[in-house]
Amino acid sequence: MHTTTHNDRVVLAYSGGLDTSVAIGWIQEQTGREVVTVAVDVGQGGEDLEVIRQRALDCGAVEAYVADARDEFADEYCMPALKANALYEGKYPLVSALSRPVIAKHLVRAAREFGATTVAHGCTGKGNDQVRFEVAITSMAPDMDCISPVRDLALTRDVAIDYAEKHHLPIETTKHNPFSIDQNVWGRAIETGFLEDLWNAPTKDVYVYTDDPTYPPLPDEVVITFDKGIPVAIDGRAVTPLEAIQELNRRAGAQGIGRIDMVEDRLVGIKSREIYEAPGALALIEAHQALESVTLERMQRRYKRGIEQIWGELVYEAQWYSPLKRSLDAFIEDTQEYVSGDIRMVLHAGRATVNGRRSEASLYDFNLATYETGDTFDQSSSRGFIDIYGLQSKLAAARDVRLGRGTGY
Amino acid sequence: MHTTTHNDRVVLAYSGGLDTSVAIGWIQEQTGREVVTVAVDVGQGGEDLEVIRQRALDCGAVEAYVADARDEFADEYCMPALKANALYEGKYPLVSALSRPVIAKHLVRAAREFGATTVAHGCTGKGNDQVRFEVAITSMAPDMDCISPVRDLALTRDVAIDYAEKHHLPIETTKHNPFSIDQNVWGRAIETGFLEDLWNAPTKDVYVYTDDPTYPPLPDEVVITFDKGIPVAIDGRAVTPLEAIQELNRRAGAQGIGRIDMVEDRLVGIKSREIYEAPGALALIEAHQALESVTLERMQRRYKRGIEQIWGELVYEAQWYSPLKRSLDAFIEDTQEYVSGDIRMVLHAGRATVNGRRSEASLYDFNLATYETGDTFDQSSSRGFIDIYGLQSKLAAARDVRLGRGTGY
Amino acid sequence: MHTTTHNDRVVLAYSGGLDTSVAIGWIQEQTGREVVTVAVDVGQGGEDLEVIRQRALDCGAVEAYVADARDEFADEYCMPALKANALYEGKYPLVSALSRPVIAKHLVRAAREFGATTVAHGCTGKGNDQVRFEVAITSMAPDMDCISPVRDLALTRDVAIDYAEKHHLPIETTKHNPFSIDQNVWGRAIETGFLEDLWNAPTKDVYVYTDDPTYPPLPDEVVITFDKGIPVAIDGRAVTPLEAIQELNRRAGAQGIGRIDMVEDRLVGIKSREIYEAPGALALIEAHQALESVTLERMQRRYKRGIEQIWGELVYEAQWYSPLKRSLDAFIEDTQEYVSGDIRMVLHAGRATVNGRRSEASLYDFNLATYETGDTFDQSSSRGFIDIYGLQSKLAAARDVRLGRGTGY
Amino acid sequence: MHTTTHNDRVVLAYSGGLDTSVAIGWIQEQTGREVVTVAVDVGQGGEDLEVIRQRALDCGAVEAYVADARDEFADEYCMPALKANALYEGKYPLVSALSRPVIAKHLVRAAREFGATTVAHGCTGKGNDQVRFEVAITSMAPDMDCISPVRDLALTRDVAIDYAEKHHLPIETTKHNPFSIDQNVWGRAIETGFLEDLWNAPTKDVYVYTDDPTYPPLPDEVVITFDKGIPVAIDGRAVTPLEAIQELNRRAGAQGIGRIDMVEDRLVGIKSREIYEAPGALALIEAHQALESVTLERMQRRYKRGIEQIWGELVYEAQWYSPLKRSLDAFIEDTQEYVSGDIRMVLHAGRATVNGRRSEASLYDFNLATYETGDTFDQSSSRGFIDIYGLQSKLAAARDVRLGRGTGY
Repeated sequence: MHTTTHNDRVVLAYSGGLDTSVAIGWIQEQTGREVVTVAVDVGQGGEDLEVIRQRALDCGAVEAYVADARDEFADEYCMPALKANALYEGKYPLVSALSRPVIAKHLVRAAREFGATTVAHGCTGKGNDQVRFEVAITSMAPDMDCISPVRDLALTRDVAIDYAEKHHLPIETTKHNPFSIDQNVWGRAIETGFLEDLWNAPTKDVYVYTDDPTYPPLPDEVVITFDKGIPVAIDGRAVTPLEAIQELNRRAGAQGIGRIDMVEDRLVGIKSREIYEAPGALALIEAHQALESVTLERMQRRYKRGIEQIWGELVYEAQWYSPLKRSLDAFIEDTQEYVSGDIRMVLHAGRATVNGRRSEASLYDFNLATYETGDTFDQSSSRGFIDIYGLQSKLAAARDVRLGRGTGY
Repeated sequence: MHTTTHNDRVVLAYSGGLDTSVAIGWIQEQTGREVVTVAVDVGQGGEDLEVIRQRALDCGAVEAYVADARDEFADEYCMPALKANALYEGKYPLVSALSRPVIAKHLVRAAREFGATTVAHGCTGKGNDQVRFEVAITSMAPDMDCISPVRDLALTRDVAIDYAEKHHLPIETTKHNPFSIDQNVWGRAIETGFLEDLWNAPTKDVYVYTDDPTYPPLPDEVVITFDKGIPVAIDGRAVTPLEAIQELNRRAGAQGIGRIDMVEDRLVGIKSREIYEAPGALALIEAHQALESVTLERMQRRYKRGIEQIWGELVYEAQWYSPLKRSLDAFIEDTQEYVSGDIRMVLHAGRATVNGRRSEASLYDFNLATYETGDTFDQSSSRGFIDIYGLQSKLAAARDVRLGRGTGY
Repeated sequence: MHTTTHNDRVVLAYSGGLDTSVAIGWIQEQTGREVVTVAVDVGQGGEDLEVIRQRALDCGAVEAYVADARDEFADEYCMPALKANALYEGKYPLVSALSRPVIAKHLVRAAREFGATTVAHGCTGKGNDQVRFEVAITSMAPDMDCISPVRDLALTRDVAIDYAEKHHLPIETTKHNPFSIDQNVWGRAIETGFLEDLWNAPTKDVYVYTDDPTYPPLPDEVVITFDKGIPVAIDGRAVTPLEAIQELNRRAGAQGIGRIDMVEDRLVGIKSREIYEAPGALALIEAHQALESVTLERMQRRYKRGIEQIWGELVYEAQWYSPLKRSLDAFIEDTQEYVSGDIRMVLHAGRATVNGRRSEASLYDFNLATYETGDTFDQSSSRGFIDIYGLQSKLAAARDVRLGRGTGY
Repeated sequence: MHTTTHNDRVVLAYSGGLDTSVAIGWIQEQTGREVVTVAVDVGQGGEDLEVIRQRALDCGAVEAYVADARDEFADEYCMPALKANALYEGKYPLVSALSRPVIAKHLVRAAREFGATTVAHGCTGKGNDQVRFEVAITSMAPDMDCISPVRDLALTRDVAIDYAEKHHLPIETTKHNPFSIDQNVWGRAIETGFLEDLWNAPTKDVYVYTDDPTYPPLPDEVVITFDKGIPVAIDGRAVTPLEAIQELNRRAGAQGIGRIDMVEDRLVGIKSREIYEAPGALALIEAHQALESVTLERMQRRYKRGIEQIWGELVYEAQWYSPLKRSLDAFIEDTQEYVSGDIRMVLHAGRATVNGRRSEASLYDFNLATYETGDTFDQSSSRGFIDIYGLQSKLAAARDVRLGRGTGY
């Protein structure tokens, strides 16, 4: 091994799995620089952080940084996504796209703390996550370099298995795992070979966060209380954002809610088949949208839909720390001032159905809306409204008639 | 009754029900002008057109025009909405908003044919439909006047019942019907008093097009074949657009698919609680979107989402015949050139879940997407891509650092 | 005159001119309620506020409220418009549209102070300003009623002249003034009969704020310093927003800058010919845009253009106090964090031409941009970038070829 | 030199200048493949195509393809840009961005005709044009490879001069030309070292298409007649699109119209200072916009502004042949149906000022707009309109009051 100075170490995003465990030694061999590992808990479950920390050291890391970022992730990453009702291409709640920026923040922190100038991650060269990691990192630390052992240092899976076996690394080597998984408290992403044929349906074994909606338990009614766009209570019990997501993951997951099977457009220009599970995220977004429908003014809500789309695209496309993303957050934050109240929904058989809303800040006015006695809407205004509202279309129609190009009814 | 000349008759949109049956005589009394009724079949079911025609004459109409517009409505109104994946406020497939323009077209036709200069409709003064009828009519016939007996001639329900009884009109008078319904082949809209309290859940008796999704039959797998955005076959059997909607209304309806409970923003500026059922429409839109996800280029698909939103808002807001709507149609039509292929979906328990897509025009490229052997994606391109793609965010970050306003990670 | 109680007075927006002077007595006669006048200085020039105050009392007002709102108008209304580069339909800097909300604020204040429940204004029933006044007022005070003597109480110009003469009001009565003018420090709006023929060119006598650009004085170079989007110095001398606008009105006006001749779409659905003069506003917007071009990140700047358009439309259309307008302000405010620096421009012959920009917060990087020695841009990144950037279009093209529908080059 | 077969030749975009003349031999040396040159006349002026053709052969080209594409460029590239009022970042009329796709089309044609599989161009690795050429080429011919001798084969300027002198190429070698120029009939682009300091003003010698606006000739009045968005006559004389651009280049250029000094965001993520001259293009766009202001319906015109922005960004960013660009064209084309009529403008001292418009398809209605006798606008409609139009803002304001969060007027 080459000698290395303290201030050009490499910080490695470390999962505890085979590939990144091997990468510790591999990077040191290929670059001659010490490796500091960083493992961040974003609610992915699995092993204890301390076990992961020890494994990193056993595999040759000079330092092993671990962080429980579950509340930070829920508060600062999932909640903005909820306020934005963020669904990339109308479906995907940005599971991995949200976790990359928080992991990147800890990578940069660890780099500053332990004297590293390079950040390494385990992503391949054809996915979104390489871009998300690297753009996030240079958006926080423009002086930092990024490398990917898989993409840049030829660390294929076969090489990794051989390396692990040869160096007796304390990690299980399996020749073949059919699933490529990423998961955190906001959801779970699954890719697998047989689904690369778009005509194949998913099999039951791809799912972990959700039970089969075809055979559901009895319907589960839940009341979610929001304050300024954030869930603050469930069925009357106060919850943190993390607890809200966890409880709804459990309850909505038991009903098979939150399964997504889609073909999405990756940032690198290819379409790919993706399976996701996000029971809590989807139930919360459904409830949040329903509360917005009674508390946001019409034009504000319409315009926010466009903002939501671009917000989701930016975050999907690695722009979490970009200036535009921050300005969009300012817009969204302003819209949430009155998004407070209760939403009642029934969770059952894959469906999260809102059937009740109440809010002190509601813009719904029973006396205006009702067709019963007590109506305060002045119907005589409508004729004047229609005359002026329809004037431009009427003028355009008169032109059609005048120039002989009528619509031919 | 006043005398009237042939060329200032009133054309009345006629449903065959109490209110519009009374309106025939009422308008003649109030305005001294003859009334021609127009009844249009847009797939609402119910009585035979000939029965309705006879009732109009029995109630005093000088002419009674009827039209079976079911195929016209499916082809020229529902299919553009399908191509636009049109869901107002993300949920409502524009059931009534789509039927108003086609009924208005027949009203104008009948007015030209029978010498009328005024069109009457049965809408109240606080809903969307008065605007849709009147703007559609003046957008086709800018010289035409519009009146609403309910809004402009004080024809309340109580007045109508008294009038019908006094004149022995051949129509049932019921003092109270709790539901206000509008329906056609694209869906069914229900308003009712007790749902004006937003915290009340819908009861079972509001639904007609859909069975209860809580107790579904066995899952029903269906393959829908599209050609340029239009469904042309179901399970391999050729269908017309009308047949496609009808078959999916039946099959998806049996699974409880297509129930919508929402608070929407009306054109006249108030929020209102609405219940809809649209099993066929929602299943078709879900399938169409899935086919677009594999056949539309990424940027085209993204931009189309914004177009879809504005298209839905325009149609909801009575602008079917407006210049902008036509220009949006030109955009949408252009995007559908390659939206051809098969979508397989499972209908079950309120869910229409796509699990297979295939198309000769697919932009999905297995060899680019796969992580297996055979991959043709050149991963070495990614570093250059990321360098340039992330450059602006990096420069902005460097500025933050330079000016001491970093993001504080 | 009817008797009136103290708490149902009418507050009248008062200009000191014929129409609103007559309206004082006219409203009292027609409604039996006392009138309180409100005159607000928004930099329109003309008479002293005290003179106007006395005239109101002489014409019968029970109270006469005056306010010098010039700095308030510049700071809180013109500066947000500058940050938004607000030009309705790409041309009109919202002169009258900006002043209505601040005048409305003082009307509401006066109404609260002097016990009024109704606000009156002098606008006709076919323009934008009636809507701007009334929507602004009910957006601040939803309990307030609004009336327009011209529109609602039949106070035509001929009636006004007769009334003034009969009651010997201390105001000049002229049978005909060919120009309809509204002006404030942000600009001047002119409508006049002969320009209602769109083929007629404006004559010289319509202009007051600007000299003829055909015969300009020598070019005038100016350096404007901005801090977070606000002009804070001109040629090195510190200025308030009001002073910045006034100085540029004078200097740009002398060069004939800021004349606008356009056909615009009014809120009430008609097109109208409008002439505006806004020398200071247009020079400031040009400079502000130039500074944004070096300090805003690309995507932020692009998206802001769409926000600017909708901001201008909302303000034009009487939505100054609407929820969406406030949320857009939050976005815009966030973008201005780094819009600080100097812009040098030459004012000459109707043109305000930026030819120099400098900013500590610039995102322009000489070393990246230069083609000279010292270039730090890594050109080898470009191939990878292009491969991935062009991938979707390439796949679409391959499909065209595959399906035999090539572009036919 | 290597031997080469006929079917793997390289097609080279050839200007006749030093760099591409040297590239003929250089490519053959570096790649061992024959070179076919392609020179396209897009109105850039300068040498005769036949002279250029002969020089290419003299420098070693095996084939030399030349095309007069001036009308094709004007008709199929400039006119769509005019219909789109295309100004990238609000200023730049896409001069080079428009010519790249037509040149690329001829490159692909020549490649097919002469058996080439690779296209070479003279662009550097840090500009937009490399991307435009390569994405356009692979969007027409996805099987084609692209290379840039400057970027990929190390052909620096010093190398080129040495090569030309050593091989006695029939081309002038100048050690230093301070300007980097690209020009065609739609405009002229200039980059030069001393303008890379953003505080430096342009000097007079950068301009060729325009005279100094500070010392203009007498004002020049022109009437431009459009048919469906295309200029078809000038001052009553019929013109082709090419002739219209050329005549206005001459007349507007003489008045110093069309100079642009801006900092723009390049596709590759850097900001750069650019000088442009586009007298004809800017005069035509100004006139076209003015005609649209009287012939497009309000909502159509508003929405088109957003379409115009994205159209300009797509074309700037090399997406001429992309699916989205084609769909936007369909929208734009639809809007032009009624954009027919006359625009009168005065060209003087750097300003192109519209002062008259007339059109049979105008939506301007004198009788609705006038404040004189004959007004047909029903002012009594306004109260109803305002009541309903302002309802949502009023409800939002009432909420503010109710919850104690008023706007604090």
